[in-house]
Amino acid sequence: MSAELCRIDFEPVGKRVAVPAGTSLLDAAQAAGIGLASVCGGHGHCGRCLLAVLDGDAGEAGEAERGLLPESELAAGQRLACQARVAGNVRVHVPRASLVTSQRLQTGGLARDVTVEAVVRGWQAQTSAPTLSDHRSDFDRVAQALRAAHGLDGLTAEPAVLRQLSPLARRTGWRLTAYVRDHEVVGFAAPGRRPAGLAVDLGTTKIAGYLADLETGEELAAAGVMNPQIAYGEDVIARLAHAVRQPGGAERLAGAVRSAINDLAGTLAAEAGIARDQIAAACVAGNTAMHHLLLALPTRQLSASPFVPATSRPVDVRARELGLELAPGAYVQMLPCVSGFVGADHVAMVLATGLDRADRVAVGLDIGTNTEIALCRPAGPALTSASCASGPAFEGAHIRDGMRAADGAIEGVRFTPDGVELRVVGDTRPTGICGSGIVDAVAELHRTGLINERGRLRRDAPGVRRGRDGLEVLLAPAAGTGSGTDIVVTQGDVDEIQLAKGAIAAGVRVVLAVTGTDPADVQEVIVAGAFGSYLNIDSALGIGLLPRFPRAAYRQVGNAAGAGAKAALLSATERERAWRIADGIGYVELTTFPGFQRLFARSMQFPTIADVPTIADVPRFPGG
Amino acid sequence: MSAELCRIDFEPVGKRVAVPAGTSLLDAAQAAGIGLASVCGGHGHCGRCLLAVLDGDAGEAGEAERGLLPESELAAGQRLACQARVAGNVRVHVPRASLVTSQRLQTGGLARDVTVEAVVRGWQAQTSAPTLSDHRSDFDRVAQALRAAHGLDGLTAEPAVLRQLSPLARRTGWRLTAYVRDHEVVGFAAPGRRPAGLAVDLGTTKIAGYLADLETGEELAAAGVMNPQIAYGEDVIARLAHAVRQPGGAERLAGAVRSAINDLAGTLAAEAGIARDQIAAACVAGNTAMHHLLLALPTRQLSASPFVPATSRPVDVRARELGLELAPGAYVQMLPCVSGFVGADHVAMVLATGLDRADRVAVGLDIGTNTEIALCRPAGPALTSASCASGPAFEGAHIRDGMRAADGAIEGVRFTPDGVELRVVGDTRPTGICGSGIVDAVAELHRTGLINERGRLRRDAPGVRRGRDGLEVLLAPAAGTGSGTDIVVTQGDVDEIQLAKGAIAAGVRVVLAVTGTDPADVQEVIVAGAFGSYLNIDSALGIGLLPRFPRAAYRQVGNAAGAGAKAALLSATERERAWRIADGIGYVELTTFPGFQRLFARSMQFPTIADVPTIADVPRFPGG
Repeated sequence: MSAELCRIDFEPVGKRVAVPAGTSLLDAAQAAGIGLASVCGGHGHCGRCLLAVLDGDAGEAGEAERGLLPESELAAGQRLACQARVAGNVRVHVPRASLVTSQRLQTGGLARDVTVEAVVRGWQAQTSAPTLSDHRSDFDRVAQALRAAHGLDGLTAEPAVLRQLSPLARRTGWRLTAYVRDHEVVGFAAPGRRPAGLAVDLGTTKIAGYLADLETGEELAAAGVMNPQIAYGEDVIARLAHAVRQPGGAERLAGAVRSAINDLAGTLAAEAGIARDQIAAACVAGNTAMHHLLLALPTRQLSASPFVPATSRPVDVRARELGLELAPGAYVQMLPCVSGFVGADHVAMVLATGLDRADRVAVGLDIGTNTEIALCRPAGPALTSASCASGPAFEGAHIRDGMRAADGAIEGVRFTPDGVELRVVGDTRPTGICGSGIVDAVAELHRTGLINERGRLRRDAPGVRRGRDGLEVLLAPAAGTGSGTDIVVTQGDVDEIQLAKGAIAAGVRVVLAVTGTDPADVQEVIVAGAFGSYLNIDSALGIGLLPRFPRAAYRQVGNAAGAGAKAALLSATERERAWRIADGIGYVELTTFPGFQRLFARSMQFPTIADVPTIADVPRFPGG
Repeated sequence: MSAELCRIDFEPVGKRVAVPAGTSLLDAAQAAGIGLASVCGGHGHCGRCLLAVLDGDAGEAGEAERGLLPESELAAGQRLACQARVAGNVRVHVPRASLVTSQRLQTGGLARDVTVEAVVRGWQAQTSAPTLSDHRSDFDRVAQALRAAHGLDGLTAEPAVLRQLSPLARRTGWRLTAYVRDHEVVGFAAPGRRPAGLAVDLGTTKIAGYLADLETGEELAAAGVMNPQIAYGEDVIARLAHAVRQPGGAERLAGAVRSAINDLAGTLAAEAGIARDQIAAACVAGNTAMHHLLLALPTRQLSASPFVPATSRPVDVRARELGLELAPGAYVQMLPCVSGFVGADHVAMVLATGLDRADRVAVGLDIGTNTEIALCRPAGPALTSASCASGPAFEGAHIRDGMRAADGAIEGVRFTPDGVELRVVGDTRPTGICGSGIVDAVAELHRTGLINERGRLRRDAPGVRRGRDGLEVLLAPAAGTGSGTDIVVTQGDVDEIQLAKGAIAAGVRVVLAVTGTDPADVQEVIVAGAFGSYLNIDSALGIGLLPRFPRAAYRQVGNAAGAGAKAALLSATERERAWRIADGIGYVELTTFPGFQRLFARSMQFPTIADVPTIADVPRFPGG
């Protein structure tokens, strides 16, 4: 029975695969090359790999599924792919929201010109094989050849690198490339293989990786994956709690993210057509919690007042100590942090945007689960930063029909008299709504007067109806959606956005106040981050998510943290600059700032609309 | 049954212990605090933990024991302690030869004055706890305190060290000792705890360890253990073969020696009354094979002509990468090697004896399983070295009644007209004969004419009798020995010594010839090594083991390799000197030297005795 092959048909993607009975649908999907979302690693916790069994036997739903899925959905064939095990031929429907392959990931970011000045260079070596009259050691003969050819002196190599040399040299006839960092050989490769570097923007939710040629600076590949630590908590607070309180928690969190970065390195190398051990350097920018969890540093002092990091200095650590299979002696530089809640990602953002060198008053915002705010004032102490917990709503979490910015996500919403206009990622039927979409939707609800200043949906306004979670507004009716269900904005969704925007707006106000900066003096507002780059600035201004600086002052720069990590990867000078930035930033602790809570509460309100729009602006809602 | 306690009496040591049924006698001995020899780690391979069950049930002998012990010995109750499992009260007899506790280990060596200039220093730091208005990271506040107090700048620390800091600082109220190497903190400790260093002389047979105060240079403890790799082969050739040919062999050999050094570090720290993580630096000198096997470097090229090392340069490697639990960031320096068969132990010997700076023609000999020969000529290229395989006979191996230099070992033999005079380690009843004893015995056999120039025992000479292994001479009759059996010198023993001495004498001759050195010009002969320090020089000269330089030229210096490792541990200047020595030594490959084999064969012969001694010199042999 267990040796019997079952045929699994995946719809609507149209893929088929044969697997032994007992295989999970998640494994079957992987075998078929379908990227099913699975943030908990197949443990039945995250509910992301939801699909519907249309035909055939996929076993009884177990405890995990019964805990996550209502009886009605189970009855309709909804299953978690990781839990359902096939017992015969099965036909399933994979909703778009369960696919990860098409997830949009901001890996572009600022195209800053960085003078390449890599910390690792590749040098060609050619020497002769040992003989009875020339029995210099393997490393000696190569090091002496490198000295003769390139003037490299006093070279050393770790055992891990020496392990590579002896067999490789004999295979290549003593012609090699040596990857040299300062006076140390960190890896050997076949002749002509240039060293590559890996830059990582390690986010709480997403991990973006970039592979670059360390000699030319050329980007060879870019890719992103989810941070698998999500299975242990969506925000940094939950993850730190897991690390501190659960036995083995710190090791588990470190292991999860290390293995994700390692896989990412493999993916990037494959895409660039290079060997993994050509990756001879890496640079990681992440917030302080991600930084500590990756390095398995102590987090107890980071998760309780006064929230101090174990270290905020740059840390150079061997890649293999983090379980990363790069060149055997490769180092990872962990970029420096500022404080418990202003991390290396913020430093990298400042590095990439040049905020540390701005000649005018400028604000930098990196909007995400945590939002970091930097204020640059050429006159005073150059940089002041703060961090606020803006929550995961912008990632689509805690939003009724929220999803990440993958194909099928509503990313833009416009109410017109003719109806609701939607812009959908991948130009397909919508299956949910992502961060920029929900901000748009709330801004439109506000602009058209469907919510009041306190964010309450008006019970009897046109389009406002009662749904299973209270008041809601329909954006896309079931008939036109990829999910086959209505896509709505609920009162709860509005509440989530209010919390997020309130935190950000209050944070900016505190930073301005602390530095005695007149808002009218702000000449530039840089909005960084994946979410920030898709955000509709007018919507954000409309709901007070962004402060009311002149519209022209706003500049969206994409994934600046990633760009900063790339710059530091490619240049020792940029690394030094990153450390000067981190060391020089004045940090403002928002939570203990007098009056912050009141400011936060006030900032959750919506701006008063001077001209209350006529009812004509309110769309004819679908089915309404 | 398995919970039942069995009483085990160990004789003649007079110890008793109660253990659960099923416990091995080896574990029981350990529980009783008896150091039973066990070089294979209790796998029943080495046969060193032999003892006799006098009374009680220790189960049936298994396959391992039946393979190693003749039926007659098994019938007499002989068992391997690691294999025999008690099933009730048991009384056993532990022969001295199976004890390791009393093993004599030359850990003294040259007392060279080294100006301490340690690579790691301890610095006191005192700072304040973080507050809401001072939320510098843990490492930052300590590093800034170190800069303010001691001018230490640009300090870094690895994650492993940072892991130590956060909890420790909170326990000690932010008063700490920082162990600093260059600009890196390699460990933290409570205030006032000075850093210690570990020097290791890693021999094929023995491992000697020394713990020293890194600031004063004072020796805190010294101890030695067997090299557990012996279970995989007694000499380097056998071990290299194991590493190259057996799957997982290299890992097994590395693991065995790493864990032995780690245990040794624990023993030394306990003896010195310090914490293991106060050991902030280590330095290891071993022959090239031991060096490679410890680092798990490739050995294929080392075990086939032209026998080249993977590296001969100094290698600095984190202690934790070798599984050594020292200060979390501590480095081990592996001293440099010269060639496949002239290793770091030889370099350390030259360092300790100052042969590289001698102002006269001098020969250095480090006699062991491999014997290294150095010739210093102030006129020419300063140093020329060679290595010869002298075999394990000097360690008591391959000798009928051979044993290591532990209590009960005959270390000196003198034939007088009144009988055989024995000098026994520990001044007790003899149980066997160690290296210096067997050299003495052979020298006496030769001096008294009981063997001829070719080393053959004269069949009909007084005292020569036929034993179970052919001709033999009785040294101590059963009635007076600790083992209860006769202790003899056999023809086979003489053969082994001939092989060993022949190799050494031929090696010295080749080195003299290659360098064009007139033997008459040699002014000093330094005899180093544990064996060399107990060796009777006159006996060695008598049998031609040592060349016939003037008697006054000979100087015995003890464990010079260990002394060299200590010097390099304590001084960066000495480390640099070690590298200059290794780099500058001219190496002579003996095995391919024309005519070496003939020279070797000739050197196996014994010197002609000018005055053949009268028969009166031949002792009245016991029982003869």
